[in-house]
Amino acid sequence: MKKSDLKTWILTLNAGSSSIKYSLFQYKGKLRVEEKGMVEKIGEESSYFEKSGGRKIKVKAQNHGQALGVILKDLLGKIDSPSSLYGVGHRVVHGGEKFKDSVIINSRVLKTIKKFSHLAPLHNPPAIVVISACMNLLKSVPQVAVFDTSFHQTIPERAFIYALPYKFYTRYRIRRYGFHGTSHRYVTIEAARRLGKDVSSLKLITCHLGNGCSITAVDKGKSVDTSMGFTPLEGLVMGTRCGDIDPAIIFYLAQRGYKLEEIEEILNRKSGLLGISGISNDMRIVEKKMRKGNTRAKIAYEVFVYRLAKYISAYLGILGGADAVVFTAGIGEHQRRVREDVKKILNPILRKCGTRILVIPTNEELMIAKEVLRLLK
Amino acid sequence: MKKSDLKTWILTLNAGSSSIKYSLFQYKGKLRVEEKGMVEKIGEESSYFEKSGGRKIKVKAQNHGQALGVILKDLLGKIDSPSSLYGVGHRVVHGGEKFKDSVIINSRVLKTIKKFSHLAPLHNPPAIVVISACMNLLKSVPQVAVFDTSFHQTIPERAFIYALPYKFYTRYRIRRYGFHGTSHRYVTIEAARRLGKDVSSLKLITCHLGNGCSITAVDKGKSVDTSMGFTPLEGLVMGTRCGDIDPAIIFYLAQRGYKLEEIEEILNRKSGLLGISGISNDMRIVEKKMRKGNTRAKIAYEVFVYRLAKYISAYLGILGGADAVVFTAGIGEHQRRVREDVKKILNPILRKCGTRILVIPTNEELMIAKEVLRLLK
Repeated sequence: MKKSDLKTWILTLNAGSSSIKYSLFQYKGKLRVEEKGMVEKIGEESSYFEKSGGRKIKVKAQNHGQALGVILKDLLGKIDSPSSLYGVGHRVVHGGEKFKDSVIINSRVLKTIKKFSHLAPLHNPPAIVVISACMNLLKSVPQVAVFDTSFHQTIPERAFIYALPYKFYTRYRIRRYGFHGTSHRYVTIEAARRLGKDVSSLKLITCHLGNGCSITAVDKGKSVDTSMGFTPLEGLVMGTRCGDIDPAIIFYLAQRGYKLEEIEEILNRKSGLLGISGISNDMRIVEKKMRKGNTRAKIAYEVFVYRLAKYISAYLGILGGADAVVFTAGIGEHQRRVREDVKKILNPILRKCGTRILVIPTNEELMIAKEVLRLLK
Repeated sequence: MKKSDLKTWILTLNAGSSSIKYSLFQYKGKLRVEEKGMVEKIGEESSYFEKSGGRKIKVKAQNHGQALGVILKDLLGKIDSPSSLYGVGHRVVHGGEKFKDSVIINSRVLKTIKKFSHLAPLHNPPAIVVISACMNLLKSVPQVAVFDTSFHQTIPERAFIYALPYKFYTRYRIRRYGFHGTSHRYVTIEAARRLGKDVSSLKLITCHLGNGCSITAVDKGKSVDTSMGFTPLEGLVMGTRCGDIDPAIIFYLAQRGYKLEEIEEILNRKSGLLGISGISNDMRIVEKKMRKGNTRAKIAYEVFVYRLAKYISAYLGILGGADAVVFTAGIGEHQRRVREDVKKILNPILRKCGTRILVIPTNEELMIAKEVLRLLK
């Protein structure tokens, strides 16, 4: 048996501000997930380790390095030796304009990712810590970065430039980046498979509707526009994020005595479904309350659906029609009524365009593992 | 001759922050404009009076009251006596949620308009000064308020509620209002006339593209959505206004050391076509420079056209198709290339929907005069 045959494991790591999630895949002709788990509440007293289907185990994880140690120690029980790891795939939120594709990480790449930390101050720094630790602890194992932004780097200037002083773009790189790229890419490929067509012959509108929500216009497999922008705050109504608003509302609230940090907190964490309904950021609960006759839940639900319908229709126009609208992630996969009510609004135009509705479960970890395979092959 | 026959004049007044524009109409079966003019630079040393086709005359106009005096004195030469005025129509920018239609002004109405000054701090106060002065100086002449917002008061909740904490709506009345209502209403009526159909059988998308730009979805003569929002900053790319942006850009700029008032100024006065192109807020100049190969003028032009196409398409969807897209105001009426390039992007979907393109010159003064007639009859 050749040594390379032993390297059948691919690990994916997703570092958040206070968590690391991992998935372990085995590759034998195709990718199969072997194990999933996470360390949560990093930096807190109550941090714990949990495997899918298992129970929470209290661990010491004062920082992301320690948390990674917990995960790797557990994995080594399964994979015998780090040298049997074919590669590690890291989810990195922001790749700026530099990374138009996933990339094998070296010290220069890592330095560039650090440079984009100011664009994703909550997300890039923990990923950098985890990548650095992996490069130290798993020296012989290739590390791959898969960016939330890279799928959207094909968006043309007319859709990514804001109507602001141009120096904001040249000096600060303020532009539309878009996020959830791994998910939009995954369901694009899956949709083509299901439709039995090559991705290069398709026009798709992919709706990632989870706690964060974004929608992408995909032409021949390439993102040509997306609803999230410079940050994940723009676009659709989300669990707690406001999405599109009149920017002047911020100035108005400031005049009314709100501090800027307070407004930022409100727009990110107290708006969206939660803000309108006053009940929950969870669309399942909002829908249930609406069914029971709660007025504000109904408004939250209807604003969510209407804004989604507007974006779908806008993208239908700029794509010149679409083969399918794809729904994915929590709300997209499981809340049939949202899809039906969007269809109710858009029925005439969807019919005129011959556009189908598809539901495709997303799988960002699998997409990251596939990217590792693609890049290392 | 009955006395009422003498009352054939209708005056319209449009008070801006440092100007008053007027139009004098004569009504004999139909409305005909007799004279137009304005006082500009109110409050400055260099204030002047100018009639259409005439030359600038230096006048003393330290405030809006004095400026109105100048206008009325000149008009009295034409109309003999104030008692021959049938009515005066005032353009009022903000009517809040109270005024769903134009209204004959009494002291209670005036008080309510004052209440909405915080929603339009640059525009409502001068209108209030002018209305009050007219009520004093032209005691026997009915005064009518025509609001920029009232045409949009038919917009349903799902389109006017932002995904913000609901108390911002109940407490501060933060919601989508929409502006340019007089223009959108005028071209709606005109479009129906041109198409030889009743307005109640039509679906229209009206694009008011001047220095300020807004677009409205009109279903059976009623506005059901519009691109301007809580203020005229939201929506399309404009001469100097940014329209839609990721609201988080404001927080990012503040972190970079920009003061909030500075950002507000930039978004309102240094963005839009001017901001991207770095050349001009005037689309004619931007288009000319683009034709000569200027790169930034080209980007400004393309972002403008693309964003417009997105809105048209979004409204096509929520209307379930449209009979026509109507272009009006400076850019809409005169810049054929903008219309053609929008058509180029949206051609497939416009064809599928059987949607025509119409160009209809707007006439807000005439609309205001018609409202005066309608209310006083």
